[in-house]
This record gives sequence, C-alpha cells and structure tokens, in this order.
Amino acid sequence: MKKHNFGAGPCILPASVTERAAQAVLDWNGMGLSILEISHRSPEFEAVILKTQLLIRELLHVPDSYSVLFLQGGASTQFNMVPMNFLKPGLRADYLDTGYFSQKAIREASLFGKVRVVASSADKDYSYIPDYIDEKHDAAYLHCTSNNTIEGTEMFHLPETKVPVICDMSSDIFSRIINVRDFDLIYAGAQKNMGPAGLTLVIVKNALLERIDKAIPAMSDYRVYKDHNSLYNTPPVFSIYTAMLNLLWLKDQGGIPAIEHQNKKKAAMLYQEIDRNALFYGLATPAHRSRMNVTFKMHDEGLEPAFLSFASSRGIVGIKGYRTVGGFRASLYNALPISSVALLVEVMQEFEAEIGVGKIQAEYNMAI
Amino acid sequence: MKKHNFGAGPCILPASVTERAAQAVLDWNGMGLSILEISHRSPEFEAVILKTQLLIRELLHVPDSYSVLFLQGGASTQFNMVPMNFLKPGLRADYLDTGYFSQKAIREASLFGKVRVVASSADKDYSYIPDYIDEKHDAAYLHCTSNNTIEGTEMFHLPETKVPVICDMSSDIFSRIINVRDFDLIYAGAQKNMGPAGLTLVIVKNALLERIDKAIPAMSDYRVYKDHNSLYNTPPVFSIYTAMLNLLWLKDQGGIPAIEHQNKKKAAMLYQEIDRNALFYGLATPAHRSRMNVTFKMHDEGLEPAFLSFASSRGIVGIKGYRTVGGFRASLYNALPISSVALLVEVMQEFEAEIGVGKIQAEYNMAI
Repeated sequence: MKKHNFGAGPCILPASVTERAAQAVLDWNGMGLSILEISHRSPEFEAVILKTQLLIRELLHVPDSYSVLFLQGGASTQFNMVPMNFLKPGLRADYLDTGYFSQKAIREASLFGKVRVVASSADKDYSYIPDYIDEKHDAAYLHCTSNNTIEGTEMFHLPETKVPVICDMSSDIFSRIINVRDFDLIYAGAQKNMGPAGLTLVIVKNALLERIDKAIPAMSDYRVYKDHNSLYNTPPVFSIYTAMLNLLWLKDQGGIPAIEHQNKKKAAMLYQEIDRNALFYGLATPAHRSRMNVTFKMHDEGLEPAFLSFASSRGIVGIKGYRTVGGFRASLYNALPISSVALLVEVMQEFEAEIGVGKIQAEYNMAI
Repeated sequence: MKKHNFGAGPCILPASVTERAAQAVLDWNGMGLSILEISHRSPEFEAVILKTQLLIRELLHVPDSYSVLFLQGGASTQFNMVPMNFLKPGLRADYLDTGYFSQKAIREASLFGKVRVVASSADKDYSYIPDYIDEKHDAAYLHCTSNNTIEGTEMFHLPETKVPVICDMSSDIFSRIINVRDFDLIYAGAQKNMGPAGLTLVIVKNALLERIDKAIPAMSDYRVYKDHNSLYNTPPVFSIYTAMLNLLWLKDQGGIPAIEHQNKKKAAMLYQEIDRNALFYGLATPAHRSRMNVTFKMHDEGLEPAFLSFASSRGIVGIKGYRTVGGFRASLYNALPISSVALLVEVMQEFEAEIGVGKIQAEYNMAI
C-alpha cells in the first residue's frame, strides 16, 4: 500500500521524481554509469548544477545580484556559518525567537559575538509570530525563521528593519511566493520542498559577501562557494540531481503561484476540520498558522495513541507530533496530494463518529 | 554499453549496490515509501545507522574505545574541524605535506594555531612519501594523508610519534588492512570505497574527545555527533543507506583481507604494464605507488589525447589526470573489477602496437 506521507522531513517527494531518480541510480541518461558514479567535474554534472541554479532563479525570481549556492550540513550548519561570516566581536546580531530552531540559531550565534533577541513568542509556547519593528537599525543583521516546523507557525509579515535580513526558510521555501529582494540571505535544508536530505540551499546578495573582511575556514566561507560555483570540493551529487528533478516537477505544476494556491487549499481543509471536530484543537494562533506543518492535539490526550493507530491503519504516516510538543503534526509539503489531506480529514471525522461525541463527553467530561 | 569506470571519485560502485539503492528509491523494503522520504528519526532508519556502524566496526576491527561518526561536508570540512577541535593558540600541530589535499589541510589549520610542516615531498612533485620520526612529541597532534588521490602515492609506513595521529584516509579506507589503534582519528569522504558523495566517516578515539575544552559550533563539534549518535540534525539518509549496502557487499567479498588481495593484484597488473610499455611511465616512486590511484603519463605528451579517445572508444572512462598533474590517473577502487584493469592493459598494448614502437621512436625520437 502506497502511504500518505505527512512526515516533517525528510518528507514526501512526487512519485515521478523518485521514479526518475531511481532510473538515474541504475543508469543515468544511458551513459552506462549510475548518477552515483559520475564525476562532479564532468560536463554532464556541471550542466545539472547549472540547470538546478537556473530553475531556482526562475521559480523564485532571484535577481542577478544574488548568488545561488549549494552546501551541505543542513540549516544547523547555517546557524554557525551566518555569524561566522557576518558577526564579529564589537558587532551585534538581532534574532527573532520563534521556536526550537530559532533558539538553536541564537545559541550558535552567541559563540561569535553579541546577540540580542529582539522579539520572542516563548511566553506562549511559540504559538504565534511576534511583530517586530527595528528602531535602531544598528545590528550586523537580523535573523528570522519563516516557518517553525515543530511549532507549526509561519511568518507572513516580515520584521521591519534596514539592516540585512537573514532568514531560515528550510520548511517553507518553494511553497509560496516570496520577494527575494526582501532578504539578504536565505538558507534552507533541502529535505522538505526541494529534494532529499544532504543538501543546503543558500541564496545570498552579492553585496553582503563583500562585507566579509576576515579569514574563515574555506568550507564555512560563502565566498568560496560563490567563487567555485559550489564545486570547491565534491558536492552531494545525487541530492542536487534529485532536487533538479523536483524543481522541474514544480515548474510543471505551474510554479510557485500554482503550488501556493494548492497549499492554501490543503491547509484550509485541514484547519477547518481541526476547528470543527470536537476531538481536536490547533496549537498555533489562527493568523500565524503554518501551511506546511499543521500542529494539533486532542482535548483528551488519552485518545491520541488510538487515533494515531487508526490513521496508520488507513495508510497515514508521519503525523506524530515532535517529542517536545506532543499531539500531532501533519506536514503538507508541496508533493503531498490534496487527496491525502482529504483522507486525513475523513479519518478524523470517522474517528469522531466512531468514538461518539456523546460518549466522549460523558467519559472524558473533565478533559473537555 | 556499461562503462569501465576508472574515475577518482565519485567513482564506481558495485552493480548490486546501485540496483538495491535504485529499488529503495522507488520503494524501500515494501514500506510504501521511498528511502528518500523516510524520517531520519524512524526506527527503520535508526537500524540503518546502527547496522552501518556495526559493519564499519567489524570490517576495520574498530575497538570499543573508538566512536564511529557520520558527518557531511567531505574531507575538506575535516580540514577545519580537526584544528577547530584539537588546536588552540599556544599549541602546535604537526603536518606531513604529501600533496594537494595535505596542503589544503595545512592551510586550514593555520587559521586556528601554530602549524609545523614536519616533512614534505614537495621537492619532487609529491612523487614519494617522506619518512618522519618525531623527536619532540610535543605537538597537539600529527596529521597525515594515507593516500594522495591526485599524485598517486600511498603511505604504507606511518610516521613514528607519541602524539595523537590524525589521518585523512578518504581514498584508501576499506581498501587494505589497517590497525585502527595506530590512529587517534581517521576521517574519510565516503565517495571512493564507502558510498555516494555527501557523507563523511570519522572514527575517533573517545579519549581524544575528552581533551576538548573549548566551545565549538555544534555542527563542528565531534562530541555532538558522538552524543547524538550522528542524529543531531538530519543526516544524509540516502548516502548512509547506500554506504550500508556497499559495506555489506564488501563483507560478502570476504572483507578487507580479500579486497586488499584483489587490489594488490589489480595495481600490480597496471604498474607492470606501465613499466613495460614503451609509451608510458609512472609518476610515483615505486615504493610509494598508490594501489588506488595510478598516475602515469606518456613520454610523448602529444599522443595523450589520442590514447584518451582510443581508450574511451573501448568504454574506458575517468582516466584523465588531474588538471594540475596532467597525463592519466586510473583509479582502481574496490568495486572496479579486475576485468576492467585487464581491458585497460590490453588497450595500452594495442595502442602501443598500433602506433608502432619503431614509428614512435622515429617520429618522436627526442621525446623518448
């Protein structure tokens, strides 16, 4: 049985992408070689890098004054590369604290210089995105997280500032229209809407790189990736190739406007059911609800294991909430078909009917 | 036509490995999910990590007092992680300079503290491995490169020292018997004898990690990988899985003693032909000739393009020498069958016969 994969990442990819990737692992383009066996210096692979960059530029309307770079190590490595490149003793970096991964970014940055948390939603379990208007404009940069994968919130309005804005977009890049010019550096682990794990995307304004004036280890220096077209050393060949296939798929779907439309529809369907269903409630403030990661719980936590196994019996996987949050998290990434969301909604309704609202109200009165 | 892949890396993998990897990309173990879509926190993938570690421990006889870690970023990232963890102002690190990648390691280390190059073969184009006997034993560590992929030399005798020995084994790990106890830290990019690009193996003596007494960014801190069993953040899932398949293949071949026997045979066949054939000569000093990367040139460089295209017409790929060295480099990694080496030898002989030794001697007299 093909599963309905709501996993938070590594996550669902379109079937056409995994089919083409599997074929390339066997024999790539009839070359008599697997994609795993080809040199990263071959003209064929250089064409893949170029095509992937062009697709990213086209899909996101990346201006020519920005570079598109491929790295490794995930967003967690960016948590240290950003301050290593742009923060130094005497300078201060501003951070928005909107959840688990923001906090990690903040901890890493403090190793390199002064860090100020300018706004935080820690007071309410990160269930919302705090507003922030910079009045000083004197930080080296402002760092934010556009989508909080674990907490299920998404930033639809950017903080207002004149300093460079650096954004972790790991879990919502390629899911909705953005204006790249609003940012000076965007980074994203690939394993949500871009491709398989093992690849990190960085889109950076060239002018920001010109500010760097210190010695940085080569593999942590954004300029090295720019100067070597992400081929300073062996890149994650297969992850880049599969990302290219996935971005081609996205283009075929009508690009980001079309997928955003779909993503809005999928999220609305699920949130509507969460709000309607007597058994469930959502964790994020409605205005800041993520379209990518929908977090919800049951009024009666004791029913959660039963719902999880009921959903699992219908082929739904990956909806267990993150261990520090509990409950459920349904990730609705680009490749998740609307039919999977419809099934989850149906399963929630069936579970509600099966349990019987009356019975629940009687048995678990205190909990509701 | 299936190619004979002599590429230096990413390089040849056994056909049974690429077949199983391709199947897992389509549907892994009948789970209804691609290996690219599964959570790195799933019990199924945790079993993969564990099995891969156990295979490495078994194949290399890694003592219990060492940790087996999976990282990203290739050996180039290790060039900075090693000094970031073990070197600090006031300490000195000793480096053996045996080629292009040693030099890169040395440059990175100098960002973190004092570096002394204790021996170098730069005087003779890195065609040999210098001997080194430490008389001071006062460095933080001694760094060496066991196989020089570009120059085609291999270190069969370790330098003598009482300080911790750290070794870049990217291009000969799993190709021959080593005694892990001779080293305090071994690192290797996976894309030669271990698996696809995008994965780095580190084997480190736990006692060495206990010496670290400074704050290090999480993703650069070996202790973080040890404490989180290489699951601090999303690892390169597919690369680890395929490495597991490849190590299973290696075990099936009879493990490292058996593959070393094969590798010796393959290298002997090719070096013998290089020494015999009037057109070619080897670049490395015979005692230090690499069994993994065989570097050679033609007495008449003008004939090299013709030989390259002749070999290519017979399905031989990946033998062009590194751009700074020129000539040819035939990489004979574990998965390269002896029949491919036999074919290369045959092609060299045919080319010699076709050109005609006499004709060459007449036409290119000065060059020979």
